[in-house]
Amino acid sequence: MLEYKAPVRDIKFVMQELLHSNKHYQQLGYDDASEDMVDAIIAEAAKFTEQVIAPLNQIGDQQGCTWHDGIVTTPDGFKEAYQQYVEGGWPTLSQSEEFGGQGLPHSLNVAISEMMSSANHSFAMYPGLSHGALATIEAHGTDQQKQQYMPKLVEGVWTGTMCLTEPHCGTDLGMLRTKAEPSDDGSYSISGTKIFISAGDHDLSDNIVHIVIARVPGAPEGNKGISLFVVPKFNVNEDGTIADRNGVSCGSIEHKMGINANATCVINFDSAKGFLIGEVNKGLHCMFTFMNSARLGVSLEGAAAAEASFQGALAYAKDRLQMRSISGVKNPQGPADPIIVHPDVRRMLLTQKSISEGGRALVGYLAQLVDVTHAGKDEASKAAADNKLALLTPIAKAFLSELGFECTSHGVQIFGGHGFIKEWGMEQLMRDTKISCLYEGTTGIQALDLLARKVLGSQGEILKPFMKDMTEFCQENYDNPQLQGFTKPIAAYLADWQNITESIGQKAMKNADEIGGASVDYLMFCGYVTLAYFWAQMAKVAQEKLDSNTDEQAFYQTKIQTASFYFQRILPRAKGHLACIEGGVDSMMAMDSENFSF
Amino acid sequence: MLEYKAPVRDIKFVMQELLHSNKHYQQLGYDDASEDMVDAIIAEAAKFTEQVIAPLNQIGDQQGCTWHDGIVTTPDGFKEAYQQYVEGGWPTLSQSEEFGGQGLPHSLNVAISEMMSSANHSFAMYPGLSHGALATIEAHGTDQQKQQYMPKLVEGVWTGTMCLTEPHCGTDLGMLRTKAEPSDDGSYSISGTKIFISAGDHDLSDNIVHIVIARVPGAPEGNKGISLFVVPKFNVNEDGTIADRNGVSCGSIEHKMGINANATCVINFDSAKGFLIGEVNKGLHCMFTFMNSARLGVSLEGAAAAEASFQGALAYAKDRLQMRSISGVKNPQGPADPIIVHPDVRRMLLTQKSISEGGRALVGYLAQLVDVTHAGKDEASKAAADNKLALLTPIAKAFLSELGFECTSHGVQIFGGHGFIKEWGMEQLMRDTKISCLYEGTTGIQALDLLARKVLGSQGEILKPFMKDMTEFCQENYDNPQLQGFTKPIAAYLADWQNITESIGQKAMKNADEIGGASVDYLMFCGYVTLAYFWAQMAKVAQEKLDSNTDEQAFYQTKIQTASFYFQRILPRAKGHLACIEGGVDSMMAMDSENFSF
Repeated sequence: MLEYKAPVRDIKFVMQELLHSNKHYQQLGYDDASEDMVDAIIAEAAKFTEQVIAPLNQIGDQQGCTWHDGIVTTPDGFKEAYQQYVEGGWPTLSQSEEFGGQGLPHSLNVAISEMMSSANHSFAMYPGLSHGALATIEAHGTDQQKQQYMPKLVEGVWTGTMCLTEPHCGTDLGMLRTKAEPSDDGSYSISGTKIFISAGDHDLSDNIVHIVIARVPGAPEGNKGISLFVVPKFNVNEDGTIADRNGVSCGSIEHKMGINANATCVINFDSAKGFLIGEVNKGLHCMFTFMNSARLGVSLEGAAAAEASFQGALAYAKDRLQMRSISGVKNPQGPADPIIVHPDVRRMLLTQKSISEGGRALVGYLAQLVDVTHAGKDEASKAAADNKLALLTPIAKAFLSELGFECTSHGVQIFGGHGFIKEWGMEQLMRDTKISCLYEGTTGIQALDLLARKVLGSQGEILKPFMKDMTEFCQENYDNPQLQGFTKPIAAYLADWQNITESIGQKAMKNADEIGGASVDYLMFCGYVTLAYFWAQMAKVAQEKLDSNTDEQAFYQTKIQTASFYFQRILPRAKGHLACIEGGVDSMMAMDSENFSF
Repeated sequence: MLEYKAPVRDIKFVMQELLHSNKHYQQLGYDDASEDMVDAIIAEAAKFTEQVIAPLNQIGDQQGCTWHDGIVTTPDGFKEAYQQYVEGGWPTLSQSEEFGGQGLPHSLNVAISEMMSSANHSFAMYPGLSHGALATIEAHGTDQQKQQYMPKLVEGVWTGTMCLTEPHCGTDLGMLRTKAEPSDDGSYSISGTKIFISAGDHDLSDNIVHIVIARVPGAPEGNKGISLFVVPKFNVNEDGTIADRNGVSCGSIEHKMGINANATCVINFDSAKGFLIGEVNKGLHCMFTFMNSARLGVSLEGAAAAEASFQGALAYAKDRLQMRSISGVKNPQGPADPIIVHPDVRRMLLTQKSISEGGRALVGYLAQLVDVTHAGKDEASKAAADNKLALLTPIAKAFLSELGFECTSHGVQIFGGHGFIKEWGMEQLMRDTKISCLYEGTTGIQALDLLARKVLGSQGEILKPFMKDMTEFCQENYDNPQLQGFTKPIAAYLADWQNITESIGQKAMKNADEIGGASVDYLMFCGYVTLAYFWAQMAKVAQEKLDSNTDEQAFYQTKIQTASFYFQRILPRAKGHLACIEGGVDSMMAMDSENFSF
């Protein structure tokens, strides 16, 4: 069984040394988020995830959730662990003080979510979904709705879900059929079937608050006729206490490849009482607000999975003796060398390490941008942060989930045949992580969002501020011989990025399908270059520490070595994606649909 | 649930039109393998795999094998299906007539194995392993051993296994501990524990014949002290009838990520009676003979998985309506367009299609080389075939298993969230196929075998004949404007292949770890270029048919379109691998083992 050890030193490196969280929090007025307080919270979260959450990961996979007569039961230990999670005050961390939260910054919660997700992907999803429901009510709900639902959701004694998907519509929400008929008392009667509702039913909380999209009578077709409702499992009195059962039931749960300990439910709404959130027919807009934060949460899962798999693989690679090093015996006392001496094992370990740590930096940066959108002191900085999030969220979501999945596969390969055996826990990480490439919009959907909606939709404007950051970094450090190995390649890739974007834009004017043809390779290209920028910044921080005679020589030296590995052995993959984009879309579209097989 | 339809038209295209199997069989003296006979056998195998084997795939995964008091039971229906397999004479197809076989060529059996593996990976492994045991006894056994074991193995009423791995040694067989003590009657008493024994115990056959590696007393350490034994589950009388139970038992079965319907056993040998195969301490050599054929079998699994996943994904992509085509509505009568109109869905489908069909061509070619090693008319042609197999087997095994796995992942992505649900069968293909990247030597081991042992070990000599084939093909067709889109890129990549091989060789003289550092990227590069050569040949055949006014215009046009897709959108990935190789090994080896985490 895997043991999880929270990477506290590296989390602090990213937050405090790379992203200067102390200064960042001060500027935004998060006075309670002092460095000492942040350190204490991270240490406590490390203990909690290592000792309470991680030990339930394997049993959660083995037992899964069970459904019996409409009631979902989570695996042994989950209820008690969730209880501890609530008692520890974890759900309240970054929630508004007005509703019982601690008012701490979102980015601190993200650091903790990473540990939760590495320790137990399924468990981490329960609070993750509550967060989405909370954010939606806080942003778009009425004062009464906030008073009724938020305190219990913030406390964590109630949980939330997002009910979007129906059997015939996943990506294409405009096709939804769930109906919302207005009642005389101002509420709505909701009827329809939703599928793939994560945490849709379970035994962890006293009530479950569903955020549901549905159509009111006479609503326009498609995306312009979507309205948003809050529909609790148990009706809620005006004072926030629980009343009778609402017309909401769990019809079944799915049997899945992974995340077995998180119930994926069919939820039936039978004339369930619901309340409109925001304006009629404006539901999709409200959903998008939520979706960006959900997608950031998924990008974190990719990096977290890489970390968990790296920890397992590293321990095994140091322990397992097999074959001699090709460059000479390294362990003469033993019958063979530990497999960490073999270059290809190191290649896989360093891939995991560079994606995990690089992903942590990218997600940490995005989380700080979210802080700014919440607490920025002026509209201009808020808008700038929002703009960068719009660009980088689809990149982080798709790139890190794909690379995170690849890293869990490396973990299995490092274990050889043992990686395929459930007992070791490595294959579970692969199965669990695959969902991150699917939910909250598949990789293909993220890529279209990035290239069609964001980049080309803004005529490239959305790229400019981030390109400027990267270009300035390169210029500022171009003459530094210690950083040239990083800045020169980035500068060259930025020119490629610019050129390929223009080239796709021009081709798309003749054939719009060029966009879809290029999109996934384009996103992956952007992902590799973006992560390179974060690795270069980390190398710079580490070099400055080494130059100032830090007493953590090995830590910072390793950081530069990992950066070098990323630049030498991972970043060059971007060339393959570039060459594939240049292949264009014609060879994809030529074939008649009926001729794909004979 | 997935429905499997054997790709009979394409199998015939590869065998008969691309690889001229009719002429090939005639030249080797396989007089029974007439085109009519081959067609009839393939048609019959298609029916059997579609109707008997494929319907058991999902239930096999759900039920798995069970172990109770040392007895392994296969899932419902497996015993009956295996019975039909034996009654149909399938095990005998390419076995020697001397022992009851039909004496048909190996390559015909490979075509059938592909269908078996697409239909049901777990089921296909049972005969696959018998094949290995049979080949070993036929090549290295005594006449008496052949008389005792082969007829029943050929008939299929007994099955076989290969018992190599032990808990502390997988790749590094030299570390094995299983002991073989000589008895007075000329037999040996075998004691030890073997793990990961596929088909190690089950209820399909009357006896199980284990081929076991062990050490005799006083054997030299390491690979030079390995001897090979045949150890039956039930002892066998001299006339081939079954006697009493031998000291062989199944201690447990593994719980795995996939191939649940194939029992992966711990096999305990307690003073079991075994008989030496070949010479004492020469066992590893005998094993290698077998291993090449086993590895060819695994490469086929990769292509077969791509085919199965493609079939499921294609049906879904034509049926599932979601979003409108970005280049204009394609299905105005429906609420949305079928997702096959979206370029990125096509990219994934065509990746599956080009790997499945390209892999079929590569494996078909290798299978014909095996035919030559069996039945070649002169030693020179046999040696040449053997040499090409030595080069291409690790490429095919690792490249096709990795790409096959990637293709099953595309299948899941095309289904979106539904791909993650067990019911659809797409995720099972992913889980089952992952094993192909692990067993019979991981991807890393294949890559070392290719680059260190084969290519650099022969000073590049082993590359020459295949390079010559590819170069000649390019030269012969260089002036053909219809083929220039294929020959020009291949010629350029062949120059890269030559250069990078020399460059690695030179760097390795200074630092042997450069080999391991480059090996996997090198293998993948070789794989992409090798498949390009087969796609170019297929395009040529198709173009000739079109030029001669075939009445199958659509089939051949599609073949050329798929080839174009491969060249435009898959082959360019080789550039990424090349760039990664150029990054060298230094950034991998710099880090101290103790500094990988803090």
